[in-house]
Amino acid sequence: MSDIALIGVDWGSTSVRAFAIARDGAIRETRRTDDGVFARRGGFAARLTALLGEWPEDAPVLMCGMIGSDRGWIQAPYVPAPAGVDDLAKHLVPAPYDRPVFVVPGVSSVDAKTCEVMRGEETIVMGLEIRDTLVCLPGTHSKWVEVADGRITRFRTYMTGELRKLVLDHGALAVEDAQIESAAAFSEGLAAAESGLTNALFQGRARRLLGRLQAAHTASFVTGVLIGDELRHERAVTTLILAAHGDIANGYDAALAHAGRSRKVVESETAVANGLWRIAQAARLA
Amino acid sequence: MSDIALIGVDWGSTSVRAFAIARDGAIRETRRTDDGVFARRGGFAARLTALLGEWPEDAPVLMCGMIGSDRGWIQAPYVPAPAGVDDLAKHLVPAPYDRPVFVVPGVSSVDAKTCEVMRGEETIVMGLEIRDTLVCLPGTHSKWVEVADGRITRFRTYMTGELRKLVLDHGALAVEDAQIESAAAFSEGLAAAESGLTNALFQGRARRLLGRLQAAHTASFVTGVLIGDELRHERAVTTLILAAHGDIANGYDAALAHAGRSRKVVESETAVANGLWRIAQAARLA
Repeated sequence: MSDIALIGVDWGSTSVRAFAIARDGAIRETRRTDDGVFARRGGFAARLTALLGEWPEDAPVLMCGMIGSDRGWIQAPYVPAPAGVDDLAKHLVPAPYDRPVFVVPGVSSVDAKTCEVMRGEETIVMGLEIRDTLVCLPGTHSKWVEVADGRITRFRTYMTGELRKLVLDHGALAVEDAQIESAAAFSEGLAAAESGLTNALFQGRARRLLGRLQAAHTASFVTGVLIGDELRHERAVTTLILAAHGDIANGYDAALAHAGRSRKVVESETAVANGLWRIAQAARLA
Repeated sequence: MSDIALIGVDWGSTSVRAFAIARDGAIRETRRTDDGVFARRGGFAARLTALLGEWPEDAPVLMCGMIGSDRGWIQAPYVPAPAGVDDLAKHLVPAPYDRPVFVVPGVSSVDAKTCEVMRGEETIVMGLEIRDTLVCLPGTHSKWVEVADGRITRFRTYMTGELRKLVLDHGALAVEDAQIESAAAFSEGLAAAESGLTNALFQGRARRLLGRLQAAHTASFVTGVLIGDELRHERAVTTLILAAHGDIANGYDAALAHAGRSRKVVESETAVANGLWRIAQAARLA
């Protein structure tokens, strides 16, 4: 571990991933914990010390994600789009710690009609090293990010993961039964989304009442409706990268396949580490 | 109270309204309680007895609403649309009680693309005594009901009230501060709805983070987004009746005015009593 040039930390709401990155940009070691920003387990400095453990003390630390939000350690600004690696590197914010620790800013996109923010996704997108394409980042707040000439130009957020949880935990569609994944119910949800989100969600309830949807397939139907609604708003684009970690990509991949749309699926965890590395290099941190 | 020909009961999820109706169809007395179906305060027969009190024992009772659902007293079917007064009157379901008590069925609308149910709203619509028009019934699950030749032909449901509560009680838009009504934030929500529901909701969060929306105006913005989304899906129709009880009509009325659309606002409580009366007459109950 003597050649470690950077410690990269993706510190999100519910989880943390830390990467020990070598001089050539290779990830030497990855640590994953559930000590997210919202876990509230003491001061952030002490939590970072615990996270870093025996990793080399001379390597600088670069962090991204909710750690830079108003509920995190240090408030990092939102850089207005268009924003690329250099724009982000110029606006790193230092955190009070006994070695160099910096936070990557978020990105905002504001005009007369829209008002958007991201924090954490900008680093994933930079890690993809793409010049011109659309990136879908599924999650609690899914982002669809337009990249032109390597910079984030515009993006849109859909509260898909959040609404999925709210709708299935509370209210008229709440389910007590164990859920079984159903490709058929998922497809029905995708199709129902064409009539609009809240109408389609209610149709899940109506289908259950009329015996056309099993209670155990409710989550699949709701997932189909929510992803279908996202895709309905993102129809124009033909080439797409789907950047996600773990199972969350599956529903999006299936929905895009269903719509006959080509896409490349990439692992967002590797991308965020590479994004931290690229930004650190541009800032001459590493 | 000797000329009472019918006791009408609108027994919903969270409230009950009972009407003592005279031989000429006039409402002699109205009782309102919060002993809704979901209140779970003992058996429904005992609850009905408490509700009726000293009202004449020889008048038959006709009930509508969630009392006829799978979580109510007696399960009444859904009559397929198109459905008018006679269709509903033909499918009344008796409840086990020591005097004649009946429940009005709901209405369903099912085809290859949609699956819809209503329970309670059909009685309000019948009480409006309209031949051809569109009726908007705002609520937890708002209904937009097409009436042709006096019968319900098609309808669509939007989970507006339910999502409003979920979004403001939990999640990223949840508000701890006391809310202040803001016509400006409401209008901004209406406009934001054009970019799609879950995107517009997230923009509320982004606007707060960027200082463009006061936390205390969050509910107004969210209400604007949700009503705006409904109206966006119900653009085709020019003449409209807005049937609601109490303050809930205000937001819809403002949104329709904002969109330059003509509408007639009517009191749904009077309408539901009249609907029960008309259905009872068609069934020769009263």
